[in-house]
Amino acid sequence: MSEPFVHEFRVRWGECDPQGIVFNANYVSYFDDTIGALWRTALGSYAAMTDRGIDMVVAEINLVYRASARPEELLQVRTTVERLGETSITTLMEVMREEELLVEGRIRHVFVDNTSWKKTPIPDWLRAGLAPYAEG
Amino acid sequence: MSEPFVHEFRVRWGECDPQGIVFNANYVSYFDDTIGALWRTALGSYAAMTDRGIDMVVAEINLVYRASARPEELLQVRTTVERLGETSITTLMEVMREEELLVEGRIRHVFVDNTSWKKTPIPDWLRAGLAPYAEG
Amino acid sequence: MSEPFVHEFRVRWGECDPQGIVFNANYVSYFDDTIGALWRTALGSYAAMTDRGIDMVVAEINLVYRASARPEELLQVRTTVERLGETSITTLMEVMREEELLVEGRIRHVFVDNTSWKKTPIPDWLRAGLAPYAEG
Amino acid sequence: MSEPFVHEFRVRWGECDPQGIVFNANYVSYFDDTIGALWRTALGSYAAMTDRGIDMVVAEINLVYRASARPEELLQVRTTVERLGETSITTLMEVMREEELLVEGRIRHVFVDNTSWKKTPIPDWLRAGLAPYAEG
Repeated sequence: MSEPFVHEFRVRWGECDPQGIVFNANYVSYFDDTIGALWRTALGSYAAMTDRGIDMVVAEINLVYRASARPEELLQVRTTVERLGETSITTLMEVMREEELLVEGRIRHVFVDNTSWKKTPIPDWLRAGLAPYAEG
Repeated sequence: MSEPFVHEFRVRWGECDPQGIVFNANYVSYFDDTIGALWRTALGSYAAMTDRGIDMVVAEINLVYRASARPEELLQVRTTVERLGETSITTLMEVMREEELLVEGRIRHVFVDNTSWKKTPIPDWLRAGLAPYAEG
Repeated sequence: MSEPFVHEFRVRWGECDPQGIVFNANYVSYFDDTIGALWRTALGSYAAMTDRGIDMVVAEINLVYRASARPEELLQVRTTVERLGETSITTLMEVMREEELLVEGRIRHVFVDNTSWKKTPIPDWLRAGLAPYAEG
Repeated sequence: MSEPFVHEFRVRWGECDPQGIVFNANYVSYFDDTIGALWRTALGSYAAMTDRGIDMVVAEINLVYRASARPEELLQVRTTVERLGETSITTLMEVMREEELLVEGRIRHVFVDNTSWKKTPIPDWLRAGLAPYAEG
């Protein structure tokens, strides 16, 4: 398989809590922002997908917290599409500080027709765009 | 004039920063939330306004920070429409911890037609709804 | 077992995204806020625990999204300590809109000595405080 | 005077509200983040200041909203220290989308001794670090 997609960003002060570390909910925001970055790289933009009548919704998220991050630290989210299914994908997101794994996330997105908001098979053009970031 | 409208809420842990106090940006969220509460009291709901073709946008906000709030503290936002103009209102928001003033905010909202998004005079029914919370 | 602990709150406009629904990361904030509310009920306050040398950190969170919530809706988080272990607890959080389950969350917290930040057994007074909200 | 300091960032989906635009409170977060970026450039890091016993607190913020930003747009914050006083500074922050001014902000920070949290004169090394970004 190819290299994972990497999204880098710097922790903001206001994203940290009175323990001086990133507030736990903000990792989910980081994941969402990383999906946006992956879509820009894979498809040009998120709108390139929604303009063709497809959107996606989050069905499930799992987070395992291993270590904390602090204000202004530079982090990387290593991203791999672990499973590219018929109507959904599961993406592994590893939040890294250089070689240290801080938080491990898995998100399952379901694809929907953005008129009916019903589950829809992943079209070939979308599958092709994501393939370089998929395992196996 | 009548009593100011009061919106009470409890500070969330995740709204506080590594100094152990409410992060400065979150007061603007509290103001927005207070406007929602005022509209529910004055008009039934925010949608009761937008359903009649009127929406509003924030044009200007001023905040003066006097003292800090900490996680889980119970705060009150004392709210007065200081100026009920032709097409805009200015609302004074005083964030209190009992009798101590923590943050003083002033927000100017402009009313717009929600089809054209152009400035529009405040209709009589809306003026009547806000009047009990207006000065003078 | 006893009734689950229920924390009620109203969705804020700024917690919703361009799809018009609560942004997925915000449910983790709601969970954290609910833990604070449970601690106030069970122990008087969160500080009642940290003042005795114990703190807790989030080890794992799982969220299953079933339906969306919209601005200003009144939601309830039904909360049960599913597992009250030696050094950690797992809490089930069901975000409800009346009888409809919107999001199902499970959070595992590990208890730590707040000087060494090392894992520590749950002391008896804390176990006793949480027992009324625990299953079985 | 020298060129203003420019901090560039991309709007996150979760920072936008049901109107499809950046939620008004988030501009204050952008300002705070920009201050962090300015401090990294001017002094190496924010900690380079606090390690020498000085911190700062926000005393006043003013925002004028002129136009909206949308998800994934690339924005720039043009930043100038308008007033470098004895114990406080006022910073102008212009949020730009290329040449269009979206939001104009002014923030007054007061410098404090980070042991006593009392107002303190800006030391020479800090004044020298900020001087290249100050007007006049």
